[in-house]
This record gives sequence, structure tokens and C-alpha cells, in this order.
Amino acid sequence: MAKEKKLVEQITSMEEDFAQWYTDVVIKADLIGYTNVKGCMAIKPAGYAIWELIQKQLDERFKQTGVENVYLPMFIPENLLQKEKDHVEGFAPEVAWVTHGGLNPLQERLCVRPTSETLFCDFYKNDIESYRDLPKVYNQWCSVVRWEKETRPFLRSREFLWQEGHTAHATAEEAEERTIQMLNVYADFCEEVLAIPVIRGQKTEKEKFAGAKATYTIESLMHDGKALQSGTSHNFGDGFAKAFDIQYTSKDNKLEYVHQTSWGMTTRMIGAIIMVHGDNSGLVLPPRVAPTQVMIVPVMQKKEGVLEKAAELKERLSAYRVKVDSSDKNPGWKFAEQEMRGIPLRVEIGPRDIEANKAMIVRRDTGEKIEISLEELEAKVGELLEVIQQDMYQRALAHREENTRVAKTWEEFKDIIENKQGFVKAMWCGETACEEAVKEETGATTRCMPFEQETLSDVCVHCGKPAKKLVYFGKAY
Amino acid sequence: MAKEKKLVEQITSMEEDFAQWYTDVVIKADLIGYTNVKGCMAIKPAGYAIWELIQKQLDERFKQTGVENVYLPMFIPENLLQKEKDHVEGFAPEVAWVTHGGLNPLQERLCVRPTSETLFCDFYKNDIESYRDLPKVYNQWCSVVRWEKETRPFLRSREFLWQEGHTAHATAEEAEERTIQMLNVYADFCEEVLAIPVIRGQKTEKEKFAGAKATYTIESLMHDGKALQSGTSHNFGDGFAKAFDIQYTSKDNKLEYVHQTSWGMTTRMIGAIIMVHGDNSGLVLPPRVAPTQVMIVPVMQKKEGVLEKAAELKERLSAYRVKVDSSDKNPGWKFAEQEMRGIPLRVEIGPRDIEANKAMIVRRDTGEKIEISLEELEAKVGELLEVIQQDMYQRALAHREENTRVAKTWEEFKDIIENKQGFVKAMWCGETACEEAVKEETGATTRCMPFEQETLSDVCVHCGKPAKKLVYFGKAY
Repeated sequence: MAKEKKLVEQITSMEEDFAQWYTDVVIKADLIGYTNVKGCMAIKPAGYAIWELIQKQLDERFKQTGVENVYLPMFIPENLLQKEKDHVEGFAPEVAWVTHGGLNPLQERLCVRPTSETLFCDFYKNDIESYRDLPKVYNQWCSVVRWEKETRPFLRSREFLWQEGHTAHATAEEAEERTIQMLNVYADFCEEVLAIPVIRGQKTEKEKFAGAKATYTIESLMHDGKALQSGTSHNFGDGFAKAFDIQYTSKDNKLEYVHQTSWGMTTRMIGAIIMVHGDNSGLVLPPRVAPTQVMIVPVMQKKEGVLEKAAELKERLSAYRVKVDSSDKNPGWKFAEQEMRGIPLRVEIGPRDIEANKAMIVRRDTGEKIEISLEELEAKVGELLEVIQQDMYQRALAHREENTRVAKTWEEFKDIIENKQGFVKAMWCGETACEEAVKEETGATTRCMPFEQETLSDVCVHCGKPAKKLVYFGKAY
Repeated sequence: MAKEKKLVEQITSMEEDFAQWYTDVVIKADLIGYTNVKGCMAIKPAGYAIWELIQKQLDERFKQTGVENVYLPMFIPENLLQKEKDHVEGFAPEVAWVTHGGLNPLQERLCVRPTSETLFCDFYKNDIESYRDLPKVYNQWCSVVRWEKETRPFLRSREFLWQEGHTAHATAEEAEERTIQMLNVYADFCEEVLAIPVIRGQKTEKEKFAGAKATYTIESLMHDGKALQSGTSHNFGDGFAKAFDIQYTSKDNKLEYVHQTSWGMTTRMIGAIIMVHGDNSGLVLPPRVAPTQVMIVPVMQKKEGVLEKAAELKERLSAYRVKVDSSDKNPGWKFAEQEMRGIPLRVEIGPRDIEANKAMIVRRDTGEKIEISLEELEAKVGELLEVIQQDMYQRALAHREENTRVAKTWEEFKDIIENKQGFVKAMWCGETACEEAVKEETGATTRCMPFEQETLSDVCVHCGKPAKKLVYFGKAY
């Protein structure tokens, strides 16, 4: 057991230093490797396999709503980026510029896409002629670059992976409908697949996307009480269409501007999984995004028949993502490793189990040990994976509810942010200046104006003017 | 039928101008759109869906051999690119350079990856310590950039999509084995999925990859008699390991250099599908990579029951990728469109068919019309898709065999290249100077030294010196 301890001791506890705990998990669970490219990470097999499961399940949900995948260039000519005024102001300070191709300087510099609204607009301008060409509901899976100064694996890196959907519609109503529809796809995906409960709402004017008419967001709460923006969906109205001159001929033969949306979700969700579900033994993966759902660990594997039995159980569990750890490490080490990597179930099988026709199943999320008869193996594993998925969601929901507090006065507000963290629900006057003052005084930002509005009081929690909206505030990643 | 003609007339015939025919198909089949980013294309839904099917099936084959997916940064610091001498000479002249991040110049410029050997080496240097860490069999799906001067959709563009596998092994033997294994994965994939027969062989010294000890290739023949390099697999020996200092501790506790491989296949294969299988009515897709395998076209669809019947047939064919074209275009136009897009089967269903309980199935590859009873719909569609897949391969194979000729004398060689095109099998002395002379005099290059060697004569077809190898020559894309 010495080695088991050693492996676990290498992680800082989350109560001691949450940021260091996060970094330790990311490294010890073998999700990423550091590179010599400043601010960029190497996503290792254990990390990338989570992303593949996210991609697959999210892409299926997209396609069920009629989304089609495409691929547009990674470079944006400077003049294109500049066409929409707010957009260029938002992104130009943080893009990487290509100035040379081969041995020659370029006539016009190109930025590496930080997001592709401008490219899609330029593309749609040529591709859309009549109402018959609408709607366009396109998406691409790719990487984007934003020249961040401070970076953290998954949460904020200079290059990250994401999907970006870009749509064009005949009417404002249809665009708004699609914006909300995709936000709900994200929310359902987070809750049903990642076991992460989210608040659905709208961003304030200050926090909305550069160039958008309205930005909708889902916000989740991490274990340390900080919020994470987990997916956004933007309604552009016809702003980009006017800047890029994207018009179509309507049924009654008039030229009309299209209405557009965009929406994205990124590898940052892997960070969310870690920070919502992880514990002091490492990563805890929801079964639906666990690259390995069951690790079979043979005990006393040199004894005759043990490895064969392990292989037989693996075969019987082939409906799941299952592996056998038959390496020459000792079982304690294997247990610690399986826990560190967040594998939802461990099946222990040794000579005495075989004799008694049973096995021990251990839940990663609770540590609970369940002795089963080998006859019920498939049924029990299937049932437990489902139970774990649901329990993880319920625990995350309970944590968020415990850490969502109402502030009716400015004193209460400051006290919560300083001493308790979590979400603060409070009334707000709707003024950007007031929102900025809250941030300056406490570090908390408006996370969203939730779709489910309530009236906690008639006045703004900060300035006392008449309240316009219920807002979730919080410190955020 | 006027509209049908019009759609088809817009394509140049391949006999008249093959290059223009190719471009016409790419555009009319809606595979790509041009962009304002010079040399870069927008891959539209009909094109990207083919790539998704390639990815899915190739990735499954990779994983069956133990490949794990990862993601490394898109940027390479200049000093990393320069570490392996031959490699930097091969790639530096054609890379895009990032010189500014945000508003500031970078201390060291970064190139956008043209390929990632240097990044994987830098990564492996930190990730490999002992023999227990070997082998590493990693792959990534990503885009790469090469600053080409002349570009053509899919065949040669400044940015393209691909996968790049990078492996590290304890021994030279194991690396060589993996190199050949992956070449065979590519070859089987091309033949079984894309219905494109390939020649498997080794590149000459002159044609091998920059920094490789040996490059293996699969070469296919396009309809116009030009060759296309369709996938390559490189054995690096320990050259990169020495340049990057990638060592591991062996079982007997010695420091040893790893042996490495890399292998890649790209979106250029979509170009190969077009040029091997297409005809003067447009694209012809092998069923296994056809995003839509069956298009149901209702005839006289305003008559009662026709659209309902079409929907019912679609439902019955749900084991396949099937669509109903219920747009308000006339049937002739729909037929031409389905043909242009290369959809393998068309099912025509009208009031008279319904009454007689039958339907007409039309094969895209041969134009053959098959009247079937509706009872046999599922069985017949399944059978025909399989037959089409096999027939397309056999036709492509016959075309290649007809266009593979033996040249024993230099006169024969020149005559074939000038007047007939296709592959030329000929003996070669093994000298790079001779190979270069052949290219200069005829435009033909060595495509590969096939694994299946024969002795056609004792002397080099060009210089008359003793022959060392049988070589496939050809003009290439």
C-alpha cells in the first residue's frame, strides 16, 4: 500500500489549494502535457478521449436539429475581420497574426481565427441568393486561437478546441428561435451527459459577445464556488448581414437581410467536469463521458485462472467501455490509478472470488463496495453506471443549491462574495455603470439574467434605484 | 427535360478538358465554395460529410491496431522546426509564420504546423522515460498549412485536413513493422471503402519525406492517366530521436534512442474519389462514403398518396443513409441533381408504381434501371449497394491495368508518357541523377518501387546501366 499512498499524496487537497489541486489532477490523471509552445497544451489520450465522447454526443444532438457540418479556413484576412465594428474591437487585441507565407511577406496580414463569424458571413454572402437557400444551419469542429496572457489547462489556453455553429435565417423570429434552441441543446447536454446542472439565462449588455444583439449563456458552479460560463448562443439580428451585405430575395421578390446566430462549446468543459465532480483522489468521470467505464483489476493475478477470468468478464461486459489492468503493478497501485483517472467502476476479481463465484464492484464516486454474484455482473454494471450518472448530477445540483444565496442588501451581497462564494441572486437596475461598480468593489460579475425571473425586492442591490432584472452574480473562471 | 439538360450541360466533358471537368464537378456537386482567403477552400456540407465518413471508418481501423488520438498545438516555435536538418530544409520554404500575438511582436516567431514531427518529438522527449512507456502510438486529426503557389480544391490547398500518426518504439524492427502496418491500413481502406485500387511500394531517396529513413506510399491512378500519391508512411529510424534527444531506459537499464514513424492521409482523397469514379454527369460516390446512399424521388408528387408512400419507403430503408427529394423541382431536375451529387441509388415512385406495387431503382454508376416489386425493396437496395461498391472497385482496377504499361526501352518509355499516359513499369539503375533526367525529359516521376518486384530486363530503361529496381513511373498530381 506504500505506492498507493505515494500516488495519492502527490495531489494537493482541494481544501488546501483548489488551483493546485486542479493542476495536479490534470497532470496526474494524464489529461495533458505541457509543451514548449507558450500557453498551448498537448491533450493526451486520456484527455482527448473525453473530448471525442463530448464531440460524438453533442454532434448527434446537433444533427437531430438539422445542423450540417462544414469546414472554413483558419485564416481571416485583416480587412474581413474589420468589417463589423464591435466585433473587431472585441477580438483584434487578442489574435495571432500571420505576416509571412514561405519566404515572402504577405500583402495583407491574416489572423488565425479567434472565432469565425466574419468568415461565415463572407461565405454566406456568396452562398445565399434566395429564400430557398435558407435557413443555413452550419457548424464546424476546429481549433481557435486567442492570445491570452494568463493561461490554465482547458480553462484558458491560447489555442483550444471547440465547435462553432453559424446560422442564417429569413426572419428575426426564426433566428431568435434557433438561438434559444441551441442554448437548450447545450443545457440538456451538460445536465444529461456531463451531469452538470446549469442556469440558463441572458448576458447583460456589458457581458454579451462582440457584435451580438443578444447573448444567451449556461452557467455552472464549480466545487470551489466559482462560476464557469459553459456554453453561449448569440443572436446577431441583421447587424453582421448589413456589415457584410448578406441579402436574399424573398418570396415576394424583395431583397432582405438575413438574420444570424452563432453558438459554441469548448474543451473548457473538460475543466468543468474536473472542477464539478473531482475529489481528493483525483478525477471522477460521469459514465457517459468516461473513455473507460469499468476497470477490471485482477487480484493475485499470477494464480492460475485469474487473468483468464478477468478476460472472460471483460468479454461479458463488451456492451460497455471496459479494460483489464493486467500490468505488473500491485493491486493497491492499480486501485489508486483507476481512482486518479476517474474510471466510474472497478471490478476486483481474485482466486477466492472465483471460487465463490463472486466479485467486488467499487464505485468511484462514493467509494461504496458492492459484493455481487458473477451471474448478475452485466445487469449490475449497467445499473450502477446509470445510478452513478444520476447521483453525480444530483450531488452537483445539491452543491449548487447550497451555494446559491439571495442578497437583498449590499451588506449581504458583500458578505456572501467575501466569505461564502457561490452564486448570488440579487436585483439589478440594468445600468452598466452599476454592474461595473459591483465588479470593482467585489470581483463578482453578472453571470446571467436567468430565464426564470423572480422579484426579490423592488430596488437594485447595489445602487438602490428601481430594479429591472434578477441577476445571478458570482466570481468566475 | 429542358432543365435536366441545362444542369448537365454546365459541366465540361472530361474528354474535352479534364481539369475543367474536375473543377465543374467540385462546384456543381456542391462540395466546396471559394473563399476570400487565397488558396484556401470552404468545404461545404456535401463535401464535409464525405470527410466525416472517411474519418469515422479510418479512425476505427486505426483504433483496431491500438492507435490513440491526441491533440498537439498548431504552432511550432522556429527553433523546434530547425532541430532536424533535412526536415527544416524540406518545410521551411513553405510555411506560414506568425510574428505577432495580440498587439505585440513575438520574441520568437511560430510557424503554423505543416506537419507535426517536431512537436511530437518535443512532446515524446518529456513523456517517455522507460521501456514501460513504449510504444507510443498516437494520432491526431487536424488541419495543416503549406504555402503552395498553385492550388486546386482538395488536391493542393494552403490549408487542408488530415490525420497524422506519430509513433515511438523501442526497436528498429518494431518501427519498421508499424510503418508497413499503417501503409497496409491505408491500402485496405482505399480499396475496401473508397473502391480505389492502389500500388503499395517504397519511395526513392529523392522522393522520400524530409528527414525519413524510408517512405512507403500507396499510389492510385486517376481517370486521366495521372497518378495520385494517396497515403504515405514514414520510418524515421532514430534520426529524429537523436536530433531531439528522445531516450528511454531499457529493461537492462541502458539509455537507448527510440525509433519513430509517421503516416498521413488527407482530404485530397476526396479529389481521388472524384477523379477515379466521376463521369460526365458528375460525381459517382462509392456507397461506403456516400453521405446519402439512396435518394427517393417521388413522381407526380402532388397526386394523393405519393409523398406518403415515399416517406414510407424512406422509413423502411432506415438501415441506409436515405433521403426523399420532395422539393418543388420537376423529376428530371431532381434526377440530374442526384446524379451530379453522386448518390449511388435513385428510387423512383409514382402513382402507377404504387398501384402496381413496384418501384424503379436506378444505379448511378451504370445508369441501369431495375424494376422491383416493393416487397423486395430493403433486400434489393442492400444488395445493389454492395454490388455497386464491388463493381466500382473492379472498374477502377480494370482501368488501372489497361493503363499500366511495360517499357523496356527508352523509346517505348517516352512514347507511353507522351501518347498514352498511365503508369509505366520500368527498370531503374537506382541513381538520383538518372531519375532527375527522366523527369526533366518527360515530366514523369518515380511513383514507387513496388513491394512486388519483377525483373523486366537487366538494365536501366534510361541510362542502360545495370538495373537495381522495378519502378512505377508516371505523371502525378
